Amino acid sequence: DIAAAVEAALQGDARLPLPLVKAGPLSGRHVIVTSGPTHEAIDPVRYIANRSSGKQGHAIAAAAAAAGARVTLVSGPVTLPDPKGCAVVRVESAREMFAAVNDALPADVFIGAAAVADWRVEAAAHKIKKEQGASAPAFSLVENPDILASVARASRRPRLVVGFAAETRDVIAHARQKLNRKGCDLIVANDVSEGSGVFGGDANEAHLVSSGGVESWPRMSKEAVAARLVGRIAEIIADSEAPE
Amino acid sequence: DIAAAVEAALQGDARLPLPLVKAGPLSGRHVIVTSGPTHEAIDPVRYIANRSSGKQGHAIAAAAAAAGARVTLVSGPVTLPDPKGCAVVRVESAREMFAAVNDALPADVFIGAAAVADWRVEAAAHKIKKEQGASAPAFSLVENPDILASVARASRRPRLVVGFAAETRDVIAHARQKLNRKGCDLIVANDVSEGSGVFGGDANEAHLVSSGGVESWPRMSKEAVAARLVGRIAEIIADSEAPE
Repeated sequence: DIAAAVEAALQGDARLPLPLVKAGPLSGRHVIVTSGPTHEAIDPVRYIANRSSGKQGHAIAAAAAAAGARVTLVSGPVTLPDPKGCAVVRVESAREMFAAVNDALPADVFIGAAAVADWRVEAAAHKIKKEQGASAPAFSLVENPDILASVARASRRPRLVVGFAAETRDVIAHARQKLNRKGCDLIVANDVSEGSGVFGGDANEAHLVSSGGVESWPRMSKEAVAARLVGRIAEIIADSEAPE
Repeated sequence: DIAAAVEAALQGDARLPLPLVKAGPLSGRHVIVTSGPTHEAIDPVRYIANRSSGKQGHAIAAAAAAAGARVTLVSGPVTLPDPKGCAVVRVESAREMFAAVNDALPADVFIGAAAVADWRVEAAAHKIKKEQGASAPAFSLVENPDILASVARASRRPRLVVGFAAETRDVIAHARQKLNRKGCDLIVANDVSEGSGVFGGDANEAHLVSSGGVESWPRMSKEAVAARLVGRIAEIIADSEAPE
């Protein structure tokens, strides 16, 4: 219902994007992007986090929107402004992110740029107290849902499923393993070891890993990585639809 | 060296505060305030954090500076601007905070408003990998230094040592226990249970617990709590110096 969508947009409800088809290589496509860290509660005051700033994921969402796509950005806790032209769903935990991604399907492209916690803690309802003389408490860890693998194996699988691999060593080898294990089409791999300055920084040195091989890109801004990735995605989708 | 300090201040080096004595009830006093959360690394990308925003601690530092004190603010990772007129030392972990507080001693007053992690993880040098089929990793927790208890028992003990107790139940009972266990003079206790809105929020409902009793303050802004606490501290110090 176009009238309702226009009214919603005028009232600032970003979750109902205008059904207007924008020009661009991803025009008419729905792209889901996850971004940022997840926070996994240990108790009401403590949580496990990670050093993802969301800069790369948010830049990809902005680039996909600029390329004409309808973009749903599912973002963990970040201090970044919402990118222009994207419907933004804010979440805290991996389970919330998983639910938001499933709600946003179907899509043509899924790009999992968030640093999703592999594990969560069996959270305590009350603040864990430090008891005098007692030993440190043990945390029971529980595996979180694997959002990337789940999307890649979904009955409503997007045409293109893109994962990220943040590694501190053997970057490309780990990325190839991840590609196979998760069942996705592309992995953007990068070195986040100390001194790389990637986590929280403004630049990235990425390798695009597919079953066909590896493209190693020079160090560039996260915006430039985003534009290049979105350009490659648009090419792959166009190629897959080209007549024989 | 006044000339060097003036020059440093003009060059914006906040760690060398002007040795000018400001007017106010805490004029000529050195106050150390800790604020914010600490981040304890699990591996190069993951860490344990807590929901402290630093708003209360930063407001106390600002109030103490406004009362004429020379203030050293030791702050964990926060997104707040540095309060005016304070020397700010930024740290990440509890151990870094402990070292920065010891470096800042001696002082007339110590106010431990930071939410210091009780435990840290024996951090891994490389990112912990999720292995296919393997069970979740166990984290070995190690107790962090107890900054409040250490300052309260230091040979250079400040005249007044003030702790905070963020509790989710039995707020005052827990605060009294903490007062005795840590050896401090005052505990500012508050309820941070879900729904209280204290963590990250702008208001606080505080109880000032001393060996003499409990003052329960009405709900007020964190700035108002800060001003009231600093006023009480100035009174206690003045009383302790009054001739018999």
